Amino acid sequence: MSSGNDRTFVLKNCTCVTATDTFLSDLCIRGGLITGIGTDLTGDDVYDVNYRVVTPGGVDAHCHIEQPADDGGRQTVDDFPSATAAAAHGGTTTIIPFALQQRGQRLLDAIRRYTTQVESRSYVDYGIHSIITDTCNGNTVKDIPEAIKMGYPSFKIYMTYDSLRMNDYDILSLIEVISEHGGLAMIHAENADCISWMTDRLLSRGLKAPICHALSRPPLVEREAAYRAIVLSELAMAPILLVHVSGGKTIDVIRDAKLSGKPVFSETCPQYLLLTSADLGNETEHNGGEKYVCSPPPRDKESQESLWNAMRTGDINIVSSDHVAFNYEKGDKIQDDFSTVPNGVPGLETRLPLLYTYGVQANKITLNKFVDLTATTPAKIYGLYPKKGTIAIGSDADLVVWDERNSVISFADLHQKVNYTPYEGVPLRVWPAIVILRGKIIISDRSIRKTYGGAFVQRKGLVLPSY
Amino acid sequence: MSSGNDRTFVLKNCTCVTATDTFLSDLCIRGGLITGIGTDLTGDDVYDVNYRVVTPGGVDAHCHIEQPADDGGRQTVDDFPSATAAAAHGGTTTIIPFALQQRGQRLLDAIRRYTTQVESRSYVDYGIHSIITDTCNGNTVKDIPEAIKMGYPSFKIYMTYDSLRMNDYDILSLIEVISEHGGLAMIHAENADCISWMTDRLLSRGLKAPICHALSRPPLVEREAAYRAIVLSELAMAPILLVHVSGGKTIDVIRDAKLSGKPVFSETCPQYLLLTSADLGNETEHNGGEKYVCSPPPRDKESQESLWNAMRTGDINIVSSDHVAFNYEKGDKIQDDFSTVPNGVPGLETRLPLLYTYGVQANKITLNKFVDLTATTPAKIYGLYPKKGTIAIGSDADLVVWDERNSVISFADLHQKVNYTPYEGVPLRVWPAIVILRGKIIISDRSIRKTYGGAFVQRKGLVLPSY
Amino acid sequence: MSSGNDRTFVLKNCTCVTATDTFLSDLCIRGGLITGIGTDLTGDDVYDVNYRVVTPGGVDAHCHIEQPADDGGRQTVDDFPSATAAAAHGGTTTIIPFALQQRGQRLLDAIRRYTTQVESRSYVDYGIHSIITDTCNGNTVKDIPEAIKMGYPSFKIYMTYDSLRMNDYDILSLIEVISEHGGLAMIHAENADCISWMTDRLLSRGLKAPICHALSRPPLVEREAAYRAIVLSELAMAPILLVHVSGGKTIDVIRDAKLSGKPVFSETCPQYLLLTSADLGNETEHNGGEKYVCSPPPRDKESQESLWNAMRTGDINIVSSDHVAFNYEKGDKIQDDFSTVPNGVPGLETRLPLLYTYGVQANKITLNKFVDLTATTPAKIYGLYPKKGTIAIGSDADLVVWDERNSVISFADLHQKVNYTPYEGVPLRVWPAIVILRGKIIISDRSIRKTYGGAFVQRKGLVLPSY
Amino acid sequence: MSSGNDRTFVLKNCTCVTATDTFLSDLCIRGGLITGIGTDLTGDDVYDVNYRVVTPGGVDAHCHIEQPADDGGRQTVDDFPSATAAAAHGGTTTIIPFALQQRGQRLLDAIRRYTTQVESRSYVDYGIHSIITDTCNGNTVKDIPEAIKMGYPSFKIYMTYDSLRMNDYDILSLIEVISEHGGLAMIHAENADCISWMTDRLLSRGLKAPICHALSRPPLVEREAAYRAIVLSELAMAPILLVHVSGGKTIDVIRDAKLSGKPVFSETCPQYLLLTSADLGNETEHNGGEKYVCSPPPRDKESQESLWNAMRTGDINIVSSDHVAFNYEKGDKIQDDFSTVPNGVPGLETRLPLLYTYGVQANKITLNKFVDLTATTPAKIYGLYPKKGTIAIGSDADLVVWDERNSVISFADLHQKVNYTPYEGVPLRVWPAIVILRGKIIISDRSIRKTYGGAFVQRKGLVLPSY
Repeated sequence: MSSGNDRTFVLKNCTCVTATDTFLSDLCIRGGLITGIGTDLTGDDVYDVNYRVVTPGGVDAHCHIEQPADDGGRQTVDDFPSATAAAAHGGTTTIIPFALQQRGQRLLDAIRRYTTQVESRSYVDYGIHSIITDTCNGNTVKDIPEAIKMGYPSFKIYMTYDSLRMNDYDILSLIEVISEHGGLAMIHAENADCISWMTDRLLSRGLKAPICHALSRPPLVEREAAYRAIVLSELAMAPILLVHVSGGKTIDVIRDAKLSGKPVFSETCPQYLLLTSADLGNETEHNGGEKYVCSPPPRDKESQESLWNAMRTGDINIVSSDHVAFNYEKGDKIQDDFSTVPNGVPGLETRLPLLYTYGVQANKITLNKFVDLTATTPAKIYGLYPKKGTIAIGSDADLVVWDERNSVISFADLHQKVNYTPYEGVPLRVWPAIVILRGKIIISDRSIRKTYGGAFVQRKGLVLPSY
Repeated sequence: MSSGNDRTFVLKNCTCVTATDTFLSDLCIRGGLITGIGTDLTGDDVYDVNYRVVTPGGVDAHCHIEQPADDGGRQTVDDFPSATAAAAHGGTTTIIPFALQQRGQRLLDAIRRYTTQVESRSYVDYGIHSIITDTCNGNTVKDIPEAIKMGYPSFKIYMTYDSLRMNDYDILSLIEVISEHGGLAMIHAENADCISWMTDRLLSRGLKAPICHALSRPPLVEREAAYRAIVLSELAMAPILLVHVSGGKTIDVIRDAKLSGKPVFSETCPQYLLLTSADLGNETEHNGGEKYVCSPPPRDKESQESLWNAMRTGDINIVSSDHVAFNYEKGDKIQDDFSTVPNGVPGLETRLPLLYTYGVQANKITLNKFVDLTATTPAKIYGLYPKKGTIAIGSDADLVVWDERNSVISFADLHQKVNYTPYEGVPLRVWPAIVILRGKIIISDRSIRKTYGGAFVQRKGLVLPSY
Repeated sequence: MSSGNDRTFVLKNCTCVTATDTFLSDLCIRGGLITGIGTDLTGDDVYDVNYRVVTPGGVDAHCHIEQPADDGGRQTVDDFPSATAAAAHGGTTTIIPFALQQRGQRLLDAIRRYTTQVESRSYVDYGIHSIITDTCNGNTVKDIPEAIKMGYPSFKIYMTYDSLRMNDYDILSLIEVISEHGGLAMIHAENADCISWMTDRLLSRGLKAPICHALSRPPLVEREAAYRAIVLSELAMAPILLVHVSGGKTIDVIRDAKLSGKPVFSETCPQYLLLTSADLGNETEHNGGEKYVCSPPPRDKESQESLWNAMRTGDINIVSSDHVAFNYEKGDKIQDDFSTVPNGVPGLETRLPLLYTYGVQANKITLNKFVDLTATTPAKIYGLYPKKGTIAIGSDADLVVWDERNSVISFADLHQKVNYTPYEGVPLRVWPAIVILRGKIIISDRSIRKTYGGAFVQRKGLVLPSY
Repeated sequence: MSSGNDRTFVLKNCTCVTATDTFLSDLCIRGGLITGIGTDLTGDDVYDVNYRVVTPGGVDAHCHIEQPADDGGRQTVDDFPSATAAAAHGGTTTIIPFALQQRGQRLLDAIRRYTTQVESRSYVDYGIHSIITDTCNGNTVKDIPEAIKMGYPSFKIYMTYDSLRMNDYDILSLIEVISEHGGLAMIHAENADCISWMTDRLLSRGLKAPICHALSRPPLVEREAAYRAIVLSELAMAPILLVHVSGGKTIDVIRDAKLSGKPVFSETCPQYLLLTSADLGNETEHNGGEKYVCSPPPRDKESQESLWNAMRTGDINIVSSDHVAFNYEKGDKIQDDFSTVPNGVPGLETRLPLLYTYGVQANKITLNKFVDLTATTPAKIYGLYPKKGTIAIGSDADLVVWDERNSVISFADLHQKVNYTPYEGVPLRVWPAIVILRGKIIISDRSIRKTYGGAFVQRKGLVLPSY
């Protein structure tokens, strides 16, 4: 009889789904890894899932946890324990939050500090991106290669927010170094000046309602910055990933880049697939529109369709949550005017069930594509693969067993430590029944195993997709 | 101890490759199916492949065997035994040749006759497409649903060749019925009138050399017909697959269709990736240029690059051989003038090694994409999946173990029953060491197991890819 | 004192408008030609127009008069006297109707017969196009150079209508010869098979209302044929002009051709700018929808806007009427089902006032562009320039003096010999007050000078516009 | 007998060319204006031009005279007398140089100072643009309406050069105000950061040769800024004109804007039509490459062709010189490294003869289009029309009589006060024989009438072309 790490765990009668295949099989797990896929497997422990769908555990490559708000000041309200519990409940077994470099701070300091801060406080595995906000007189370009060697090969750069944005010159210098050392730059593409100009004009006319957040950032603001970022990428000969693409003509810009063979990748989020700017209310309303304030803002139905189509054609590569948790209360999400509402919506827990329900079950994408967008490709792009992101021999046994079950989203049922969800009342048709992290069941019966079993993943070997 | 179909066969130490994943594993096979994927598997028979690459057996969805030439008269020179032996040697375990409807013949007759003709004469598994050349006064649209029910859900329609072409009206009627019953139309898209006009003009000027074949079918001839076919597809609301796309701006036409959400799919062939019209010689040469005469003709280097890029972006979905075997000899490929040279080049055996060498090893596509283009997607599109096209539990154990070994192509070494190859002297860096069909080794040590073990595959459940 | 041809006629105080310029001036006319433009001119006869707008007389390059209907049988109901009177009243001083080659008839016979038929029966000057419907066993390509030499350098070719259509092969042969001899091919681009297929399907479902005419010819029918015609033009290296472009994506096809430097030109008509398919009624209505049956059919508002934009960008080169007169009565426009309604709407008289009102005065195009589209460019493209189409020294003194005056179109007020107008009740803000043909006033006080003063114009020297 | 302003001057036997027409005629001039166009005109003074081509005097809407270099420091070496003499010799009768606002200086001060500075020192007529470099704490947006009212309705804004560039926020504010008051913003579109980054990298590698100027400003630098400028134009709902477009894909960006109906206009210059970056030498050469240093730099042959095509399709609206005169000598054009070479090439005198020779006589554009691009459209766009830019009754009698005569350009023969020309040794086939400004012959026999007869033109009534 085996014990400890040698003990085998067999998940019986799975409908296994990878980015390519769907097949009936048992899965055998040993030492936290998938060691067998086959029929009639036996093991020390056996759990029969009765032919339910089993997917790789989700990889959420874009979430902000225990991070000061983009525009300074406020801190997000959840913490690593609550956020990773929410992730686990929602079927996500690996996250990649951000270590924010404060201006004046060395990049490596920021990375080390955040790594220490979150250690032993996570229910799921995690890598760490960093956000670069300062060249530190040339020190940042020296820290980048070291960070990559240490297993932190991805770096976010903002083209907007006064406290975060880098100018084109610095972006060129940064992405070149990142590329030369095998890392990847993530770009938040919005034109800062256009936003400021529109904001000033709205405020000068006394327009303060949440919808003005959307009016201050029309689609061309994103499209321009995406176009510019791609030009910078071309000049520096460096790959980039455009985060949280909100749809519309920005996709055409991305598509043209891909078609001409440029290493440009892209991400979208559920808020751009399911919300619209109408959720922010009208020009005089303050009826909760703040709950939907994120950047870029949600657009319209047509834009949503453009994103679904882009997922099918490969022009959108991954779907992340861009989770940011602020409470809907005075001084936090509720502000006198739109321009001081902290940006971002919570979404770690609902990402996968929403995409499964409104993508797969609505026949917009296949179940294989769902796995591809939410687990396999994020794992490949960010250097987690083949450890994470798939069901294959030797990969971590991170698995989700799905229940088909009707429910309705309510913030009260979620485990995100934030007092609302932008999807309140939205029906779902699936939910994770069992979530397994490296062979251990961490979620079952909607309860979490109360152990901080998540570990830091040193990342390397980015696999940039065909483009 | 098990026996017969219960006997287990374990392929040890494989580097397994699917369209998504690459992983080290053993594979267990029982009853012709893959029943286990895992480490430390044991079985009645064990074969250690020493970590060599193992891919799914190739699916060649476009080959002409024992078929009268497109333009009537001559018959292709190989036969089912030789062609399927060649396929097997080259790593292809499933082919889909064509049952040609002669004008005046009922479609079902053509299908039944060809099915009978090839029975028990194949080394590899096979489905059968049909070629529609006659509406038979309305009988063809009645035969189509029946053919689909019988497991023949794909139909080829020609827009060129006097003996084969259908007019736009009939194409609309045909593809509509095919679509309504869940089948798929394959379209040979070239403008017949343009070709005739150019041919007449060349001949009237005494221009007869093989290169005139290419001059008579410039790229716009294909581009026009592809554009028209897509319009017909849109009007009839029916999916189509454009066969043997030769590259260039035709790809833009396909891309525009896909981007606007139309169910348009596409195929290319090694001859468009590796040959150019320069291989046909110049306007006065008859030095073997006939060997490269196929339709559409090979184009130029730039066109080749456009195809490689289109494979990466998903604008080309599959790679087939479009195998047609005529001997290079007087009265066969050698003719007084280009216009009577029978069209087509042999390529069943070389398809996979060429694409592996010049695609994967030249870093143009990943090994996963290679599997996708040559096995998984053709299997899905044509209703062979999940029986064929992947390595997954429950799928047929059709496998290829690859050797990395330098060689040079020579027709003398190939098993195609035709006296030349268009790739004579072309270096290869890989070759199938072992080929397994439903668990049985059919190729090893460059020798074939002398049993017609191939079976007819009734096809259904077409999985049209995202577009 | 001068007399006869030497007598000078001065039009005082004109606001002269050319395709480029607008200026205040007198115009001096002698011998039917403009001999002086300037201030303070004096002459034997003087007419003060009090600074009203004066444009070159309109050139209507597309009208069918005394011609059998496109689909055989019926003859149009007006005659040369009535049609040219209508043209004159509407400000058009030169028309180019068609000599229709009957199948089996030599092209030159058709041309000569029509020329004789209309002689001395016209109020305005006229050139003559021919319509080619038969290759006459190779005689037509021999007749073309002769026709061009005789002053008939433009030829219309149909891609649709069973009684008129030419196949791609013949189109290639024809446009090549036309081009080699300096002529121009006009192409009616609609896919005949698509139309037949849709028509059969509509009729088989019992759908017969006029709107079905539009349903049987959706925009892709035109777009496909335009694309194909451009490919034929490219293969034959011959310029073409696509007649009566109805808008939408067909314009994109034309634009792409122009941008890649191909000699492709285009025409639209008021019916595509002002009518929509809604004018044809709904699927059960027969309430006069037949009045609007023309091919291609009117589209929608968006399509109209695309045409206005294309005029501004130069993607549409000319605006003609495509005048066809059939009475709205049983056996003529009124038919049991849509498929036998003769195609075409009357429009010779209303073309200029409509375009002036809804183009110029609605600020969609400038007055200079109006002159360009309706007089200067048609004159240049069809070999009438500089004799016709502009106000310049040495040009024919064909002039229109415009009144700004509100009116409403009613067929009863028009001079077209047909019992309806598709623009009944449409408000106008301008109307020609005075129309001058080669120095003679032919229209004033809404009355016509009762002399058949129109002459045949031998055309040559086509000036193809920049593209 | 008349005298003074009443005296009539008749130019006999002209081949008059406007943007639309070409006709034989006499021209009568009185009081500086064209008062008669016609045959057999008589006058107090008569000059027979023997049917030579007569065009409107050229309008050069982009030239820098007596202006500090864009990057500060140096002053251009010619002066108003020499520059306007050169213009006159080359057939240009109206120029629009720039009043440069120094940072800290009020815009109106800059305008007034420059107006005073150049007064009574010009051989040709002139308007004045201004260059905005400072918002002056909100004063500039107040000065703009006043400047427009004063007859200075066009304003140049730079996106590059540290001493001149405005950020996106300020550009939005400026172009909005300019547009609201009926003016036009001219944009120098190059991405400043990209240029600095490339420059730093080249210098850090010791690369200093003139060709590095081109390497530091690759086409994407212009394309990005053009794209951004168009987005700003769209956000501010303000028309813009992109100056000195160098070709290639930037034209596609402009074209897309025009096709979607945006008021975006464009200019190119002879240096982009006739020079290439090869003129700057290779990476180690300093053999006079500095002579060709201008921004953007000349590109390649393909880019030249794209510009010729764009002129034909209307995507390029005007051709100006962007004349900047620095001597080719140490401390001026000759510098130790490329980054300090003052930008710009002289071209006032050669603009028209070059475009006539290499455009019209090379059959790339018609003579009418030549007039359109160099006189009529610049006059319309910048509010000089109908006073300038055409041959029409009431317009200024600014005329050029052209000789067809072979010559070779040499700086020694030119009247530009600068010691080189980038076109040294370039053959010409035409040259202005006679140049007339408001009825006065200012150039004949290659000599200039020694009177500063040029006057300031208050501009208004911009006529933005169709787009």
